Amino acid sequence: MSDYHAPVKDMLFAITRLADLGRINQLQGFEDATPDLVEAVLEEAAQLANEVVAPINAIGDREGTRVEDGKVIVPEEFKTVYRQITGDGWAGISQSADVGGQGLPYVVGLAVEEMWQAASLAWSLCALLTQGAARAIEEHGSEEIKALLLEKMVAGEWTGTMNLTESQAGSDLAAIRTSAAPDGNGYRVTGQKIFITWGDHEMTNNVIHLVLARLTGAPPGVRGLTLFAVPKRLIHADGSVGESNNVCVVSAEHKLGIHGSPTCVMSFENSFGYPVGELNKGLACMFTMMNHARLSVGLEGVAISERAYQQALAYARERVQGQKKGHEGGVAIIEHPDVRRMLMHMKAYIEAMRGLAYVTGTHLDRANHEPDESVRARELARLELLVPVVKGWCTEMSQSLTSLALQVHGGMGYVEETGAAQHLRDARITTIYEGTTGIQAADLIGRKILRDQGQALKLLIGDMQATVADLERHGERLAPIRSLLQTAVGELAAAALWLGDNFAGNPDTPGAVSVNFLMLMGTVAGGWQMARAASVAVEQLDAGVEDKSFFEAKIVSATYFAEQILPLAGAYRARVEAGAGTIMALSDDQF
Amino acid sequence: MSDYHAPVKDMLFAITRLADLGRINQLQGFEDATPDLVEAVLEEAAQLANEVVAPINAIGDREGTRVEDGKVIVPEEFKTVYRQITGDGWAGISQSADVGGQGLPYVVGLAVEEMWQAASLAWSLCALLTQGAARAIEEHGSEEIKALLLEKMVAGEWTGTMNLTESQAGSDLAAIRTSAAPDGNGYRVTGQKIFITWGDHEMTNNVIHLVLARLTGAPPGVRGLTLFAVPKRLIHADGSVGESNNVCVVSAEHKLGIHGSPTCVMSFENSFGYPVGELNKGLACMFTMMNHARLSVGLEGVAISERAYQQALAYARERVQGQKKGHEGGVAIIEHPDVRRMLMHMKAYIEAMRGLAYVTGTHLDRANHEPDESVRARELARLELLVPVVKGWCTEMSQSLTSLALQVHGGMGYVEETGAAQHLRDARITTIYEGTTGIQAADLIGRKILRDQGQALKLLIGDMQATVADLERHGERLAPIRSLLQTAVGELAAAALWLGDNFAGNPDTPGAVSVNFLMLMGTVAGGWQMARAASVAVEQLDAGVEDKSFFEAKIVSATYFAEQILPLAGAYRARVEAGAGTIMALSDDQF
Repeated sequence: MSDYHAPVKDMLFAITRLADLGRINQLQGFEDATPDLVEAVLEEAAQLANEVVAPINAIGDREGTRVEDGKVIVPEEFKTVYRQITGDGWAGISQSADVGGQGLPYVVGLAVEEMWQAASLAWSLCALLTQGAARAIEEHGSEEIKALLLEKMVAGEWTGTMNLTESQAGSDLAAIRTSAAPDGNGYRVTGQKIFITWGDHEMTNNVIHLVLARLTGAPPGVRGLTLFAVPKRLIHADGSVGESNNVCVVSAEHKLGIHGSPTCVMSFENSFGYPVGELNKGLACMFTMMNHARLSVGLEGVAISERAYQQALAYARERVQGQKKGHEGGVAIIEHPDVRRMLMHMKAYIEAMRGLAYVTGTHLDRANHEPDESVRARELARLELLVPVVKGWCTEMSQSLTSLALQVHGGMGYVEETGAAQHLRDARITTIYEGTTGIQAADLIGRKILRDQGQALKLLIGDMQATVADLERHGERLAPIRSLLQTAVGELAAAALWLGDNFAGNPDTPGAVSVNFLMLMGTVAGGWQMARAASVAVEQLDAGVEDKSFFEAKIVSATYFAEQILPLAGAYRARVEAGAGTIMALSDDQF
Repeated sequence: MSDYHAPVKDMLFAITRLADLGRINQLQGFEDATPDLVEAVLEEAAQLANEVVAPINAIGDREGTRVEDGKVIVPEEFKTVYRQITGDGWAGISQSADVGGQGLPYVVGLAVEEMWQAASLAWSLCALLTQGAARAIEEHGSEEIKALLLEKMVAGEWTGTMNLTESQAGSDLAAIRTSAAPDGNGYRVTGQKIFITWGDHEMTNNVIHLVLARLTGAPPGVRGLTLFAVPKRLIHADGSVGESNNVCVVSAEHKLGIHGSPTCVMSFENSFGYPVGELNKGLACMFTMMNHARLSVGLEGVAISERAYQQALAYARERVQGQKKGHEGGVAIIEHPDVRRMLMHMKAYIEAMRGLAYVTGTHLDRANHEPDESVRARELARLELLVPVVKGWCTEMSQSLTSLALQVHGGMGYVEETGAAQHLRDARITTIYEGTTGIQAADLIGRKILRDQGQALKLLIGDMQATVADLERHGERLAPIRSLLQTAVGELAAAALWLGDNFAGNPDTPGAVSVNFLMLMGTVAGGWQMARAASVAVEQLDAGVEDKSFFEAKIVSATYFAEQILPLAGAYRARVEAGAGTIMALSDDQF
């Protein structure tokens, strides 16, 4: 079982250099978020993540959760640590101070969130869901509901959930059957929901369920869905918690991973609910939290890959096996070129993924806080374009990166006690929940690219091309990166053109090419961030920075990404341009 | 939990059309192996695999194995099914009739083996190890030992194991410490071995362990290792089984997958052993079985991917979700282009992998049975070149293919009861045991390419180019496949040239580029087999074959492979040609 050491230095680099903290720092409300403060916050969080949260990760995996007498039992350590971390005010770190949060920029909260996720993905999900639910209530709830629920949720005193999925309604929420009927000053909700993450537990004395349900007489499809806040226990007017609200946990799933996180079947039986937002506009309310939630899950891909990488690295440094010229006796396997290739592969990907995720996070800060409305709109468009890419690409890559980390261990990787397998098992959920990769890709192609005739994408490609041009000032030193990035951006631009020319010709084309287009965008955008990082590194080295080793390594990982990963862009482009023909050519019975 | 339906039609296609059964059929000893007989054998095996073996797969995963009172307990169903299948003579299907086998071509045995592996990988491993051990004894054992052990092992009455790994000796067998000392007409073996697959069980009344050990006074390193056959229970001169031989199971691992297969720590304490082969030449004895064993494990990648694909396909046909133009109401998700892309991706890869594995298997038949010695030598060289590619590429691909199969299930894929997760977990061992992918790649580059100055590779590339040329006769119909294969073969040829020019310049180069070279070879060789398959399909259709649907589908999957997978060749080539520089550029502490 490996330790976790939050990569504070690389996180700070991504926040300050790639996500441009200086610009955020100038926005109203973020004046306190100086580099020094951010560093202090990250150092403090890192200590907690490393020493308090990380040790419970294997316990959660081993013990799992169970339903006993209608209650979900989670490991005792999860409860203790939850109380410690929320007690210290970490839950609402980037929530607005108006609702009891710390009011730090979202991108800073993202770095802290990455630490919790890496330390224990299963444990971190409770906070993720809670803060997501709080944001939905903050954005759409009435003043009365906000007064009743918000502060407690932001503080983590109560937790929150998202109740969307039903057995017949997964990716297709139009099929939701849970019903709601008016009753006095509220509503009564009845139905069964599945796959409810942290649907129940005894860590806090209440759980606020956000439930998508259909009002009696509402239209069919997604236009008939309303969002309700349904507490596990009824809440008195003074905010105290009362009797049961007929919200029952039916069972908890036996899953491949994230064993410490209860995934529940929940049953609502005439349970009292507060409407959140307009009636029949429930889906729109969910959408406003989607950018946060999907970005967070994309970040899970980064976090779990980092954790797995650290475990592989520790093993590669310790495990002695084989010989090498110039070394006496046996050598640690990190000396073998193929092991080093695997480590470089993980390191380069993780840095690129982190850079892209944090940069995307900063667009959220700017979309909310830039003074100029047209700037906010542009930032929002960029955010919405990149969110499905971060979610889809980072989580897809985390599958192969956690698998590679296991591979570094050889046979020991396959033994559960080693801990490498847990990361692979935990990571496997990330391409599924909060919208599968296919759903992200459909969102990307349909809503984020075709709907605005590719305008936001064109601006993004333009920014990438500007980076390519800018790299010229470093001359030969970054010439290989520049040339490889230029080629890769060219592949993306060509694929985008192809898409514009061809999407309308065959209704199956967007769906058939979408995931490969998403992977193409992720790959090129990751390489773009690495090229920007290399450029910063050269500047820092030229300026005589003290910590040369970090910046020299950054140029190496950027070069690795350009040499070894950017060439995939050509393959993804070819896949996109092959279109839907062959993919749809078979009849069902030919499979 | 899904059923398994052995893909007999595609197996027969690969055996008769790609692996050219007709040519094997003409070799001495294989005159009976007519297409009709092979079909009958496969149909019979398929029925057993589908109806008898497949149902125990989930049981093995759920129940696992445990050590109780020094004995390994496996699921009762594993025992029953083992006795049924071996009792029917299936164990030694491609072993020579001289030793009690059925004497069928190896390539036919390979298809049957794929069925057992797909039906239950954990269960199939016992037979794999047993027949591997039997081959080593047949090849290297004295007449006396063969008389004592062989028939029982070929029949599966006794099982066999490979005892190589020790905790300090994994990929590096030179570090083996298990010792042996002469005693009367045998030797006494003492030491501890780890990761011993099917190291103990109660399915049969004896287990024959092949143990690599170091004779007292033998040289250090791999040149001091001798192979011993150490029975679990002593064997009397009349072949009856006697008392314990001090071979103890210390523990069984708690693994990510293949739960039904006990992975044991074994302890030998002055245990009586028969030497197999020359003293101090133990490694060479292991090498002769390596082609079989590695080919079998490569085949596991095909088998488990096929099983996972079938499960995903069944789910995609049943699960109704979302709408589609032209369909009333909800549609099965197989109608959605992105789901279809995933299914096509699996189908095309599996067919290519199966084709390559079977073709490689047939080179083994020819290397052993061709009358002309120079032909045998050429066949052996081709076999040895392709074995690490089949092992490395098919098992690496099985990681992403089983993961994709899980993805098709959405949230249900993450729930263990669905069964998709088991395939992913089971597959994860295949890139590790019988030599990791890194070890396969080192073998490929060092022993199979550089040692003969690329001669065998040059011949292989020549054969691929001949296929490209031959495709011209089909004109426009296969023009896209032809053109894409030509490009991909060109990438392989260029990378091979680069390797020849650069391997000597930096001692780290071969190790740094080897896995990418292997993946390049696998990808191009898979595309080559698919192009050959498409060519056969066109011929069959032109000849007015009855089963048009199968051959039309074959052209589609070959086209998909060419369009969507062959473009990876350019990326792999770029990775190879980037060399070792960046991979080795960091100091240890920069990771």
